[in-house]
Amino acid sequence: MAEFTPSEDVLSGKTADVYFTRCLEILKKERQNPLATMEIFASRGGVLCGIEEAKALLDKVLPPDEGEVWALEEGQRLEKKEVVLRITAPYSSYGLYETALCGMLSQASGWATAAAECVAAAGQTPVVSFGARHVHPNVVGILDYAAITGGCLGCSSTAGAELAGVNPSGTMPHAFIITIGDTVQAAMSFNKHASPEIPRVVLVDTFKDEAEESLRVAAALGNKLASVRLDTPFERGGVSPDLVKEIRARLDRAGFNKVGIFVSGGLTPQRILSFKEADAPIVGYGIGSYISGAAPLDFTADIHEINGMAIAKRGRIPGITDNPRLKRIR
Amino acid sequence: MAEFTPSEDVLSGKTADVYFTRCLEILKKERQNPLATMEIFASRGGVLCGIEEAKALLDKVLPPDEGEVWALEEGQRLEKKEVVLRITAPYSSYGLYETALCGMLSQASGWATAAAECVAAAGQTPVVSFGARHVHPNVVGILDYAAITGGCLGCSSTAGAELAGVNPSGTMPHAFIITIGDTVQAAMSFNKHASPEIPRVVLVDTFKDEAEESLRVAAALGNKLASVRLDTPFERGGVSPDLVKEIRARLDRAGFNKVGIFVSGGLTPQRILSFKEADAPIVGYGIGSYISGAAPLDFTADIHEINGMAIAKRGRIPGITDNPRLKRIR
Amino acid sequence: MAEFTPSEDVLSGKTADVYFTRCLEILKKERQNPLATMEIFASRGGVLCGIEEAKALLDKVLPPDEGEVWALEEGQRLEKKEVVLRITAPYSSYGLYETALCGMLSQASGWATAAAECVAAAGQTPVVSFGARHVHPNVVGILDYAAITGGCLGCSSTAGAELAGVNPSGTMPHAFIITIGDTVQAAMSFNKHASPEIPRVVLVDTFKDEAEESLRVAAALGNKLASVRLDTPFERGGVSPDLVKEIRARLDRAGFNKVGIFVSGGLTPQRILSFKEADAPIVGYGIGSYISGAAPLDFTADIHEINGMAIAKRGRIPGITDNPRLKRIR
Amino acid sequence: MAEFTPSEDVLSGKTADVYFTRCLEILKKERQNPLATMEIFASRGGVLCGIEEAKALLDKVLPPDEGEVWALEEGQRLEKKEVVLRITAPYSSYGLYETALCGMLSQASGWATAAAECVAAAGQTPVVSFGARHVHPNVVGILDYAAITGGCLGCSSTAGAELAGVNPSGTMPHAFIITIGDTVQAAMSFNKHASPEIPRVVLVDTFKDEAEESLRVAAALGNKLASVRLDTPFERGGVSPDLVKEIRARLDRAGFNKVGIFVSGGLTPQRILSFKEADAPIVGYGIGSYISGAAPLDFTADIHEINGMAIAKRGRIPGITDNPRLKRIR
Amino acid sequence: MAEFTPSEDVLSGKTADVYFTRCLEILKKERQNPLATMEIFASRGGVLCGIEEAKALLDKVLPPDEGEVWALEEGQRLEKKEVVLRITAPYSSYGLYETALCGMLSQASGWATAAAECVAAAGQTPVVSFGARHVHPNVVGILDYAAITGGCLGCSSTAGAELAGVNPSGTMPHAFIITIGDTVQAAMSFNKHASPEIPRVVLVDTFKDEAEESLRVAAALGNKLASVRLDTPFERGGVSPDLVKEIRARLDRAGFNKVGIFVSGGLTPQRILSFKEADAPIVGYGIGSYISGAAPLDFTADIHEINGMAIAKRGRIPGITDNPRLKRIR
Amino acid sequence: MAEFTPSEDVLSGKTADVYFTRCLEILKKERQNPLATMEIFASRGGVLCGIEEAKALLDKVLPPDEGEVWALEEGQRLEKKEVVLRITAPYSSYGLYETALCGMLSQASGWATAAAECVAAAGQTPVVSFGARHVHPNVVGILDYAAITGGCLGCSSTAGAELAGVNPSGTMPHAFIITIGDTVQAAMSFNKHASPEIPRVVLVDTFKDEAEESLRVAAALGNKLASVRLDTPFERGGVSPDLVKEIRARLDRAGFNKVGIFVSGGLTPQRILSFKEADAPIVGYGIGSYISGAAPLDFTADIHEINGMAIAKRGRIPGITDNPRLKRIR
Repeated sequence: MAEFTPSEDVLSGKTADVYFTRCLEILKKERQNPLATMEIFASRGGVLCGIEEAKALLDKVLPPDEGEVWALEEGQRLEKKEVVLRITAPYSSYGLYETALCGMLSQASGWATAAAECVAAAGQTPVVSFGARHVHPNVVGILDYAAITGGCLGCSSTAGAELAGVNPSGTMPHAFIITIGDTVQAAMSFNKHASPEIPRVVLVDTFKDEAEESLRVAAALGNKLASVRLDTPFERGGVSPDLVKEIRARLDRAGFNKVGIFVSGGLTPQRILSFKEADAPIVGYGIGSYISGAAPLDFTADIHEINGMAIAKRGRIPGITDNPRLKRIR
Repeated sequence: MAEFTPSEDVLSGKTADVYFTRCLEILKKERQNPLATMEIFASRGGVLCGIEEAKALLDKVLPPDEGEVWALEEGQRLEKKEVVLRITAPYSSYGLYETALCGMLSQASGWATAAAECVAAAGQTPVVSFGARHVHPNVVGILDYAAITGGCLGCSSTAGAELAGVNPSGTMPHAFIITIGDTVQAAMSFNKHASPEIPRVVLVDTFKDEAEESLRVAAALGNKLASVRLDTPFERGGVSPDLVKEIRARLDRAGFNKVGIFVSGGLTPQRILSFKEADAPIVGYGIGSYISGAAPLDFTADIHEINGMAIAKRGRIPGITDNPRLKRIR
Repeated sequence: MAEFTPSEDVLSGKTADVYFTRCLEILKKERQNPLATMEIFASRGGVLCGIEEAKALLDKVLPPDEGEVWALEEGQRLEKKEVVLRITAPYSSYGLYETALCGMLSQASGWATAAAECVAAAGQTPVVSFGARHVHPNVVGILDYAAITGGCLGCSSTAGAELAGVNPSGTMPHAFIITIGDTVQAAMSFNKHASPEIPRVVLVDTFKDEAEESLRVAAALGNKLASVRLDTPFERGGVSPDLVKEIRARLDRAGFNKVGIFVSGGLTPQRILSFKEADAPIVGYGIGSYISGAAPLDFTADIHEINGMAIAKRGRIPGITDNPRLKRIR
Repeated sequence: MAEFTPSEDVLSGKTADVYFTRCLEILKKERQNPLATMEIFASRGGVLCGIEEAKALLDKVLPPDEGEVWALEEGQRLEKKEVVLRITAPYSSYGLYETALCGMLSQASGWATAAAECVAAAGQTPVVSFGARHVHPNVVGILDYAAITGGCLGCSSTAGAELAGVNPSGTMPHAFIITIGDTVQAAMSFNKHASPEIPRVVLVDTFKDEAEESLRVAAALGNKLASVRLDTPFERGGVSPDLVKEIRARLDRAGFNKVGIFVSGGLTPQRILSFKEADAPIVGYGIGSYISGAAPLDFTADIHEINGMAIAKRGRIPGITDNPRLKRIR
Repeated sequence: MAEFTPSEDVLSGKTADVYFTRCLEILKKERQNPLATMEIFASRGGVLCGIEEAKALLDKVLPPDEGEVWALEEGQRLEKKEVVLRITAPYSSYGLYETALCGMLSQASGWATAAAECVAAAGQTPVVSFGARHVHPNVVGILDYAAITGGCLGCSSTAGAELAGVNPSGTMPHAFIITIGDTVQAAMSFNKHASPEIPRVVLVDTFKDEAEESLRVAAALGNKLASVRLDTPFERGGVSPDLVKEIRARLDRAGFNKVGIFVSGGLTPQRILSFKEADAPIVGYGIGSYISGAAPLDFTADIHEINGMAIAKRGRIPGITDNPRLKRIR
Repeated sequence: MAEFTPSEDVLSGKTADVYFTRCLEILKKERQNPLATMEIFASRGGVLCGIEEAKALLDKVLPPDEGEVWALEEGQRLEKKEVVLRITAPYSSYGLYETALCGMLSQASGWATAAAECVAAAGQTPVVSFGARHVHPNVVGILDYAAITGGCLGCSSTAGAELAGVNPSGTMPHAFIITIGDTVQAAMSFNKHASPEIPRVVLVDTFKDEAEESLRVAAALGNKLASVRLDTPFERGGVSPDLVKEIRARLDRAGFNKVGIFVSGGLTPQRILSFKEADAPIVGYGIGSYISGAAPLDFTADIHEINGMAIAKRGRIPGITDNPRLKRIR
């Protein structure tokens, strides 16, 4: 499972807003280092993710026997403006990390929240995160960890799978079939060489009509075939409930009623619901951009006490904000 | 300026979709390694960013004397579906990096495109990227590099400033003023200790009415004061053209007509335009979430030739796609 | 309480549509003066106001022992097209007053209806009419009488308060504070000189941030201070639930939990509801333009019988319209 | 023409917001009476009306040789937030009249602005104000004076006509025709008795189809008939361009091409435009509720100087606001 | 009742899409005539009509002892995509009639569905089809038959009435009254000459105001008058609930409470509902364009079996589609 | 070309509204048969069709040397409310045919207008009417005649082609390919047997992916193949510009650049425009429901003169309506 280690760039403040670096130096020159309480909250509701990584950072930077920290838990739902993290410690020990703490929470919670929407729409049907290709490789692992925190059953990247403690998912890209030159041949080659614990899921929209290809592949692999995957490009109308139902009917009529249908390609919670409303018989959804393209859930940090005295900037309420859901974690 | 070095996790394929890893092993067992041409394009128009990092990756992984690569340049505008990168090389040498190449381009281009929208709205007035706090620290540098590629004049993170070859921007956060306890005292302390080349920009919305605080700070710092920064929280109505114009008038009437007004806080191109339409006299905009929260510009990679033969999956047109704007970079 | 006396201009017909004057002369020349029944109804539903003033006019003009009049009561709800006033009398005795009767009812009922919407939105919290400044002084008294008929607890004008039999409300305008030059000084001066039964309500948005000023005023007046009034201009974001809650919290934290918060400034039923939904702790609302700018509830008068014979113009139904809610008042 | 005399209730402050009365007494006790400059502006653009009445009030209350007053002229267009009236005088001499000054301007300018919209829509065709019946008789004269200030050619009330220096307009109401019992008979009676300078305009929608009645009336009055008036109730479809054109055609075909068609009944600028677009041949429009129901153009008064020192409440800019359109009137 | 006989043009294939003619000849040359199962379904839900005519065609063309046919019944509701007709027979015996079968069902079901919407809106009040004038005379009978299948109680054409086994409805057009020159005279002439079983329904909007004319006609015909018909042109506001209620009141007041009010003219289900919501006392609705202008309910025919083998084009599911509501009719 | 012969049912009045039959009998009994002028106009603008058929009917029924008829020409554009047909003749000679005249014009003009919209959208590309299957066979000929009057180059029915004087269009339905069992075999069979002047247009969406099938058919027929037809069902995404362009590219790359692409399936003017905007290379459009489902262009007939005297019902203008575009045709 996930073990987060703060990077050198975070610890050195290189990824921080430079005004923290500058002002901490000034406070040092002024010999000011009050005990400060900072509270962090989000601008809209969602699913909290990134708190484990935030804790790892705080554990690294707070002085050994100092610092009181209260937090919600990874994966809990949070309300708009609800305090999810409260730190009381000498300001100089953690002031530099306001940027990193907010950033870790913001992006991971944005992804987890979007994943949770897909999972809620899909009901009992598993959802897998396929968004790695649309985020920078530096955060692929975080993306997939957040998607799984939000309820996905699996993810396509090894980095994310390691953080989340699962096996990565995925069998074959279009590139593989194009390289081989024929879907049935590609399927047979995959079946021959791939590790036996990997389920045989064959992509069937590359060269031929999906219905025709599904039957050819099913005939070739027989009961080895776990599922066919439909990823029909939008230039061909995309995947639709009608298409899924027709392929189901044609597979059944040919005796392949154990072969599942897995769908991907531009799916959203709304499109997932349209499959469900149409009773399209699907065994899994692969979700890419809806999760990877989700906006961060912006978090803000505010100081509410200085040396035990309530204080706050205009627009905020001075003093500790009551939140009985917080647990003390340090 | 930016020097991109592929990380160990990218090179090892840990951040790749696992099906590339799996299928490349199968192709190896099948002793298949054709010369493949892959083309990469975006799903909507925008500003290209990430191509330098993509080149650095290809330079690292393509065999020394092999591989032909054509590309647009960093910062160029791209059209929907326009090919921005074309690679012809033995498939096994780069197939594993489809995920990373698309990811680098997608997220950086999404940010650069949003930044360019703000810069276009702001016209002659400088725009600074303030979004570091809402993305994961692993990509803070990329975010700010992309914002500057899109036209921003500066950024708040040291990591981004280094990649882009500029100095980081930013003077004081609310936390500094709260820690000191008074804006004028904080301004004077900053003025006393901060490096002389840093312009004195003082945040004036923390404790008092912005108009009152602006005059207090201007009186205290005199001609040392470069600008006041307005970041009024939305609970107090946010920054508005009326507020900027009133503060301008009050500063002028008090003789501080050289003190600039810098604004930040939830700005968007539309809000920037509303300041311009109202002739609000602003010397700089700090933009956070509009850039950091921009959705990636999703890129897709397709194989169009195998061993010189035109091929493509359904929905795409086989063979090389003509694009005279591409330049050969290898 | 209200005693309405018809003005000379009304009695002389100077404020009437001139065609009544002209045609009544012709009828006189024709020696026609039938017993006519006229019915008056409104074009939309609302709260009836002006019926007392209408009665006063009819009492003045109808021949001593003649004329049967039926009416709803002041302040009752009325339905669209419901008859609220029915007069049976020789036509020449009241025909000239059709304009005045409709006008008294239309404008007063329009105001009373708008006031009732605010009062309904405010629930238990008192509402005060502050609209005098946006209507002509000739109708200020009527406006405030109508607002109180619609449910307001008080009003700002002496004229209206007299008609409604209440004390006028209001402590200090911005002009007073500006003249004095400081809010705390103004508050103390007010406290020193104002009649003891006037509650000390101090306007706190003139010069400083409302939160800061509230605390300064509370400290200065101590337990003499009844409430602070927030009338924040829209250039500073107007009054919002967040602002009210923050000031409440800051007052409480400073020990001033008995000081109320009264709000005004562009309020509407919808904005009142948004304060309630946000649980903003408010002790009173001052409403101006929503009431004073309300469109009249247009009333129409139709003759339905002439000498006991049913008649009506096209589009109306001849004869007496049944309405069991009417009471005979003469 | 209009001669405005401030009423006793205005002069005594009875129609003022009571807080002016109260605070002026306090200022007196504090022996404070600074020279104050007050500026008045509207919240939206429109046609200025009420400035003559405001001047009459100021002339009455300002000390004989004191007080400088600048203003726009009655009937001029004004912009949103443009200063239309600026008073510099000892505050105690006019502070009490802030309510009345704003009220006079607000309601009259609201009506004048609405009238101007109708007049603009009507182009060359005359517009007459028919709204007296929907405002309180106390302001009927002001309403019609404002309508004429906004461009109307006439009005229905004697009070308004006197203020505006015109003759009142209007021939016969439905009540007259119903009392007589037949339109043709009513028309002949009117023709026989009415003063010769009043044009014979006969209302033709009371009992019969308008086309039929128009022809009957035209036959009865011959070339004495100036116009027919259509005021068709909405229960019969209201007046429409098709109806006007049909009646025009039927009158022409019967040889009555000199008889005009005057329309009234729920008209708005948009409906006036629809008549014009349809080339409906109309000689005059009677407008009621669109003018009488117009919301006031809310005016606000602010102090900008005290004893020559610039000052202003938050949200406003201290000091005299430049407006070269103002003329000194005292 | 309806007896449908296929026309010569249908039987010869002249009205068919020519590609059926051409391909059936080719199949003949190829000596191909498989047993084919065709299923027909609609693109949206509605009321089935035309199935009797389709059966008549199939009975004529299918070989005496061959052909199995299953169908829903005339007038039943059908769902989107529900199979309403299934034919199993040698393809050459019915392939030519795919155009005609779909066409009969499409247009008739479109009309029946629209009629059913009107009938549902009208509740207990009878609805009569008046749309003959807006369809080609070749299909007038089918239109009115379909309207009655959809629930109308009668229709205006003799052709439709014969097909549906009812008497045609309708008394007098505007042309009759204009030819006579006066409504009362026309009514008396009609009453004198028309067959006694035809109810006396007199059209009352031709020359005079409807209320006036209704009373004149009622006075002239006395208790012979069954109803008045209102068909007010839209240039006079059309028929409205207010008009109906006023005429009802005026008839009642004059003692004609047994005279009904029948309305027509641009009626739609929504307008019918507005009459019902307003409690307008109506004895019948005449509906024209809403029914006659209804779009066809497009039907599609697909082959699902060839010689007992399941087959289908892409997008459809091979084999017999289960539908327990179908009854075998041959 | 079209020769229209009135049917027996029309001549006998069986398809007429029965009230014409009834009232004409009464007029006969009353010995009334005035010279009446009737004018016919449409409720919205469009393309006139049906006037030839109307003339044929009038020629049949008007007395030999009587009756003056003026009309626009078949295919001309008409304006809303423009008179397109004016008949002056003894009323009894044509009064019965008001229903048929309006009906012929209404439905045919509705279809012609919709066809003209498609033709306008398609520009130079031919449009063919494919709507026969969605109208009753009794009007298939009229539909296709109207479509060609509106600008279509051809139609699918023999009946329509005969009326319009063209050859019917169409090669093969899905049913033919399903009966044969394979598209290539069906294409070869068609090529072998079909008359040589029929262009070889092969439907390619029945069993396989359209791109694959197009190449198979092109390979099989070589330069005999005129076009492929795409009629992709909406369950497979329908025909789209992307699909057309891809097939064009794949045909070209395989050397079949002379093979055209013909599209059909749910096309509308808007979808035609989307093909044009995308530069999709199309040689013809087949349009079904957009034309066959068009609502009739409702025509109304009014009497404007009786025995030379101007007359009209309420809402219409008495006397002859001037229209210089009319030509005398009898």
